[in-house]
Amino acid sequence: MAKMVSSRLLQIPESPIRKLVPYATEAIRKGIKVYYFNIGDPDIDTPEIMLEVLTNWKQKTITYSRSHGEPNLLESLKNYYNKLGHTFINIDHLLVTLGGSEAISMAFLATTELGDEIITFEPFYTNYNSYAAVNGIKIVPVRTFAKDGFHLPSRQEIEKKINKKTKALLYCNPNNPTGTVYTKKEVEMLVSIAKKYNLFLIADEVYREFVFDNRQHTSILSYFNKIPNQAILVDSLSKRYSLCGARVGVLCSLNKEIMDGAMRIAQGRLSAGLIDQLMASKLAKVPESYFKKVHREYENRRNVLYKGLLSIPGVSVPNPEGAFYCIVDLPVKDSEDFCKFLLTDFNLNGETIMIAPAAGFYATKGLGNNQVRIAYVLKVEYLKKLIQILKKALPAYNQTLKSRG
Amino acid sequence: MAKMVSSRLLQIPESPIRKLVPYATEAIRKGIKVYYFNIGDPDIDTPEIMLEVLTNWKQKTITYSRSHGEPNLLESLKNYYNKLGHTFINIDHLLVTLGGSEAISMAFLATTELGDEIITFEPFYTNYNSYAAVNGIKIVPVRTFAKDGFHLPSRQEIEKKINKKTKALLYCNPNNPTGTVYTKKEVEMLVSIAKKYNLFLIADEVYREFVFDNRQHTSILSYFNKIPNQAILVDSLSKRYSLCGARVGVLCSLNKEIMDGAMRIAQGRLSAGLIDQLMASKLAKVPESYFKKVHREYENRRNVLYKGLLSIPGVSVPNPEGAFYCIVDLPVKDSEDFCKFLLTDFNLNGETIMIAPAAGFYATKGLGNNQVRIAYVLKVEYLKKLIQILKKALPAYNQTLKSRG
Repeated sequence: MAKMVSSRLLQIPESPIRKLVPYATEAIRKGIKVYYFNIGDPDIDTPEIMLEVLTNWKQKTITYSRSHGEPNLLESLKNYYNKLGHTFINIDHLLVTLGGSEAISMAFLATTELGDEIITFEPFYTNYNSYAAVNGIKIVPVRTFAKDGFHLPSRQEIEKKINKKTKALLYCNPNNPTGTVYTKKEVEMLVSIAKKYNLFLIADEVYREFVFDNRQHTSILSYFNKIPNQAILVDSLSKRYSLCGARVGVLCSLNKEIMDGAMRIAQGRLSAGLIDQLMASKLAKVPESYFKKVHREYENRRNVLYKGLLSIPGVSVPNPEGAFYCIVDLPVKDSEDFCKFLLTDFNLNGETIMIAPAAGFYATKGLGNNQVRIAYVLKVEYLKKLIQILKKALPAYNQTLKSRG
Repeated sequence: MAKMVSSRLLQIPESPIRKLVPYATEAIRKGIKVYYFNIGDPDIDTPEIMLEVLTNWKQKTITYSRSHGEPNLLESLKNYYNKLGHTFINIDHLLVTLGGSEAISMAFLATTELGDEIITFEPFYTNYNSYAAVNGIKIVPVRTFAKDGFHLPSRQEIEKKINKKTKALLYCNPNNPTGTVYTKKEVEMLVSIAKKYNLFLIADEVYREFVFDNRQHTSILSYFNKIPNQAILVDSLSKRYSLCGARVGVLCSLNKEIMDGAMRIAQGRLSAGLIDQLMASKLAKVPESYFKKVHREYENRRNVLYKGLLSIPGVSVPNPEGAFYCIVDLPVKDSEDFCKFLLTDFNLNGETIMIAPAAGFYATKGLGNNQVRIAYVLKVEYLKKLIQILKKALPAYNQTLKSRG
């Protein structure tokens, strides 16, 4: 007799960012060079002072860390937030998590009962669906549009979706996957809605530093005093310090019940990684010049990519304001099929690209089918290749479709 | 208006292993030396070849690893299981998890619907309660007794607890917290019950190598062919290689639906830590002499602890057969209060110990109140101190109780 696994396991969605990996692996096997623009895994060097924690390693035993987090990392994080101007943050408001992923999952569990709803803005970071499925809740999308640069819709459009099951609003600022940086006015609107309907407001700010064209980032931390028991910050060191493979995130709230409960979850899984945390704890010593250089690099990449994309017939994209992603409209009907084609049936001088079909970033069925997400995490030289490859691949793909009949 | 967190967050239990940490911190602040026997965090050196991965670190960027796991770690793990005689294991049967903790949590989610039950044997590893709460299921305990060395009860006692909501049997072998090593006959009984009632059988074997007095460990892997879709192995490198602070565990099953679903969960949280995995991937190169030495050390500690405990009036404990824990009966009514006393009101020449009250290892209210769990993770010299401290502290505590009235 076959043993059936749980229905909730079967409901966990496949990652649209990673589901094409087998095709990439196969392309590489055939000798093709694949450039990865599908995932936010930057090629920027990790700060040297962090890598030196590894090369100078002395401790003979890799022991557990504390469930709350390594004390010197907590202290560094506190100082980091204090220096940003949020001087009320102390280590009791912080919990070190296994990446931003765990922080979001904890926030979902803390704020919802089973079957409850969290409102967010589509297209949204696709893994929110995964954490929602694991926690038995529903993501309710409010649509945003390319024509608005994926900025928030009106207050009415958001309020329409609020019902008795709604427990939280969730937003990512700067936004993955759209690159949108919400204005102060937009953040204040969300705070005001949260206040009016007594909802939690969960802000994912892992791209905080990546804002372009002299924009200012408006952090939810500036509104913690307005909604002290409702505001939750999710953070991560992955992008800021090119530490994706070090699983170090942060959950931050003034709500003591949330932090106490999250601490109990943290105790159950014992601790985050010791080495990753000790590495991350050097964040206070990363020179300002590192960020300036990284910021300049990303802004330059953004410029090259944006200009290049607009030079391709039939392609459109709003100018990304931050983070290192954009959602691009392509002249195709089925972008997943196109992304697959890039890996299985196309190459330019033995090279191709991996990009993420955008449908998985929408909760509404049928949306995003002509869009892809591009993560500009590789250097300009490779971004230029991406433009060349797209330029050639799009007509080649549409030709293939015709011949397929 | 106060914002209430979810009821499920409030239900997550505090770790009885870690809840006394604030008292220990306070004792240290007062200048007292605290020896930690409360948590399975060994003082044994991590193999040098693993630490060299850190000191020889070259990679400039700490990138994501694959969701499935680092390829060379998966290959090393496959070889490890193959060498143990389980030659059918290949990398499709393995998923690298963020510690054994994540593997157990995934197994719970994969095998149960909300409100379902998993049967295990009490006293049991207390964090099973935490994963059960996070996943919205119930742990149903079958009691084991010190007088039987905490070996399994009769088949009837187990079958009595099976009902329509029962989805899995879970056992830890060698056992944390009892140190019991289940016999071949006991493992076969569990396999037979799982087969008869079509239940999943989840085996936590993170202490596989730690079996004493020339006992043989019977792995669930030897029965994967009997119940291929029902058997699930949870494993971890934490104890075997003194890598507790490197969060590297393993989920292993022949059930494709389980492995596919677990992979989707893994994609959602992106990857386990890159550095930890690269370190762990050296497991194939750890010399046999390392294990022999470690094994000898733990067996010696076990001997010293067992003999020492029996020398204390009113204390009893079955001789631990494996792992590095034991459940000890103390002549006290409230072991949590005693464990707290050790930290707040007692010291012997400026030194004291932290041990874990055992009630948290039972699901049945009222059990374990006179017991503690001791993890013999520190060297013999300190184990001797533990015996001395217990010898003095027990009468001192009972004296204090009397004077408290």
